[in-house]
Amino acid sequence: VENRIRVNADRLHQSLAQLGQIGATAGGGVTRLALSDEDRVARDLLAGWMRDAGLAVRIDDFGNMTGRRAGTEDRAAIVAASHIDSVRAGGLFDGAYGVLAALEVIRTLNDQSLTTRCPIEVVNWTNEEGVRFEPAMLCSGAVAGRFDRSYVYDRTDRDGVRFEDELRRIGYLGDAAARPDPAAYLELHIEQGPVLEAEGVPVGIVPGIVGITWLDVRLTGRADHAGPSPMPLRHDALAAAARLITGVETIARQTKEAVGTVGRLTLEPNVINTIPGRVTMSVDFRHPDSATLDALVASFGCLAAETWASTGVEIAIDRFWTSDPTTFDDDLLAAIQSTCEGLDLPHRRLWSRAGHDAKYVQDLAPAAMIFVRSRDGLSHCEQEYSTPADLEAGANVLLQTLLRLAGTADPS
Amino acid sequence: VENRIRVNADRLHQSLAQLGQIGATAGGGVTRLALSDEDRVARDLLAGWMRDAGLAVRIDDFGNMTGRRAGTEDRAAIVAASHIDSVRAGGLFDGAYGVLAALEVIRTLNDQSLTTRCPIEVVNWTNEEGVRFEPAMLCSGAVAGRFDRSYVYDRTDRDGVRFEDELRRIGYLGDAAARPDPAAYLELHIEQGPVLEAEGVPVGIVPGIVGITWLDVRLTGRADHAGPSPMPLRHDALAAAARLITGVETIARQTKEAVGTVGRLTLEPNVINTIPGRVTMSVDFRHPDSATLDALVASFGCLAAETWASTGVEIAIDRFWTSDPTTFDDDLLAAIQSTCEGLDLPHRRLWSRAGHDAKYVQDLAPAAMIFVRSRDGLSHCEQEYSTPADLEAGANVLLQTLLRLAGTADPS
Repeated sequence: VENRIRVNADRLHQSLAQLGQIGATAGGGVTRLALSDEDRVARDLLAGWMRDAGLAVRIDDFGNMTGRRAGTEDRAAIVAASHIDSVRAGGLFDGAYGVLAALEVIRTLNDQSLTTRCPIEVVNWTNEEGVRFEPAMLCSGAVAGRFDRSYVYDRTDRDGVRFEDELRRIGYLGDAAARPDPAAYLELHIEQGPVLEAEGVPVGIVPGIVGITWLDVRLTGRADHAGPSPMPLRHDALAAAARLITGVETIARQTKEAVGTVGRLTLEPNVINTIPGRVTMSVDFRHPDSATLDALVASFGCLAAETWASTGVEIAIDRFWTSDPTTFDDDLLAAIQSTCEGLDLPHRRLWSRAGHDAKYVQDLAPAAMIFVRSRDGLSHCEQEYSTPADLEAGANVLLQTLLRLAGTADPS
Repeated sequence: VENRIRVNADRLHQSLAQLGQIGATAGGGVTRLALSDEDRVARDLLAGWMRDAGLAVRIDDFGNMTGRRAGTEDRAAIVAASHIDSVRAGGLFDGAYGVLAALEVIRTLNDQSLTTRCPIEVVNWTNEEGVRFEPAMLCSGAVAGRFDRSYVYDRTDRDGVRFEDELRRIGYLGDAAARPDPAAYLELHIEQGPVLEAEGVPVGIVPGIVGITWLDVRLTGRADHAGPSPMPLRHDALAAAARLITGVETIARQTKEAVGTVGRLTLEPNVINTIPGRVTMSVDFRHPDSATLDALVASFGCLAAETWASTGVEIAIDRFWTSDPTTFDDDLLAAIQSTCEGLDLPHRRLWSRAGHDAKYVQDLAPAAMIFVRSRDGLSHCEQEYSTPADLEAGANVLLQTLLRLAGTADPS
């Protein structure tokens, strides 16, 4: 019986639309920053829905909300989670989809009067986006022990308002004992990239989150009049930077699964008729494997040395931040894959190249993620969109995988 | 006799040092913006020196100062000129050298009691630098008819102060009848580039001022997260811009006498973990020949079209400003060359790739320029430097060429 049950797609879409009205923007998106008034209204709505679905709702000391559906065994739950905070003028699906799909799974189990052996919990993590309070994934990180409570509480927004004060103000400061404590963890999310769409596949099974490393690159040449300096006598910092930018692209293209981006660049004096004397630029490399990430950085270092030698422009590289790759649990990935096969859904493995709460939860329990196709790969913008059919498919993958993991009380 | 006379180098260096004290900066340079109090003091000093040297001083309606030494024939003069205004924190030689070397020529002729057939005039042009009142070379341009008097008078500095008001305030608003009216024109100047130094040659004979053209280039790609977009699916505006920057360098290097510079670049959103969606950049191409300048722009256009096709990044090019090349007078160039040969001075032809008042004076009369070697090619900075020996050599070239052009009253 349980292999054939499916979520109620209309109810899922209705809930998404209703939540999307809280903080709605004129352009069809939402602005629902963490611990804002909009976040409070959205949390109240979610808590009401959880209670209506029979869940026992608890709030922890970071405002993380957990709704628990009891199993026949009283033990740690299988958790399905995401977040309902958003970026400024973000979309309707980033985060909200994962939470409401998990809620829809509960409602469907209720409709079917199905009891699982293991409890199932729906979690809404506080401040995933990190737009209001940096860094991102603050409260899953806190639960995983990456951040101290005092560190979290003292985070301030750009107006200097403290995290703890806002958490108390909106009425979501709870108990440390109420923190999520998963036996296993699933996070369903929109892809936020164009890969699934480009390959015509609705569902991605996410083996992990890539490692990310950031470089600060400073080029020092010689500023000079654009006129009187003949080409061979120049030390043009921007011309040297152009080689590095092209090099980042080439290095990333030559390595499977790698991406490389120069997102930030400033030059001095930035005047039309002066050869640039100084350039500062960022490099962002991402790869699933730490050693390969190091190799990308090393290749870039070689290119910089060659460029210095051939142009006379000094190049200093500071690798100032690295987030190590996260590898999700093989058994969970296999369970998701079997579910997709059972549902006859086209799927592929697809590394996440952006951070998610699952990154930190993997420290606590086996974790994995499921992606659904995004139109044009857009997210963090009002145009973010996934089709109702894809959202439904993803929710059914979550439902069936949760059932596999939690087990049914009365196997038929 | 007159072939053997030489300037008094010590007196020249002393005058340069004395003028350099007006507006002196802590770093050994000068800030003497046009029509400032410093400019007034410097003008008063210069006018006094001119009168002491027996010159008849006149001031025109743009503040251009002319000191005339009569010849045996009462007609249009051979003019030697430059400017004594400076950029902010500029050097001691840019402009001042040309004016004071011309004054030293007069003093030397006085020492020798030599009378020329043709009158000789020393001119200090107002506001050559264009730093305080844009555009540069404003008052030679006005005399040549490129700018109306009302246009010149209504130029304002960044505090909104009018050119005419400042000219009147410092006491240098004179008569239109007093404008320079050269029979021929010589401008001696430091090179402001590294070519003469690189080739070990003290003197450059300047066949003209290159044409300059400025492009505004706008690249429109698609801003996206640096993570989720795989390399082949990106439309990275900065990666496309890097190809154009490298292309400008390549195109300029492949064409003799050409230079090409990308001096200004801005990108959006300019965030470390976002693929740049928009880039705006400038291109500055310079070449002695108009047709070649057009060909450089055309090559760049082809490169942009290829880049658009291969990256999907839209590229729009606006060629918004062009200054046509100026070709100096062949007879004057030959006279300068003969002088250098007579003085046994190593010399080479060297196009000016920066603007000078001679550009506009060439509209009025045959004109040419003489360059002397600059250390490290530096100018418009406090480090600007030419050796006393090179400054002396240039002044002797000016002296002997003026004598050739003006002729002596009593040929020996």
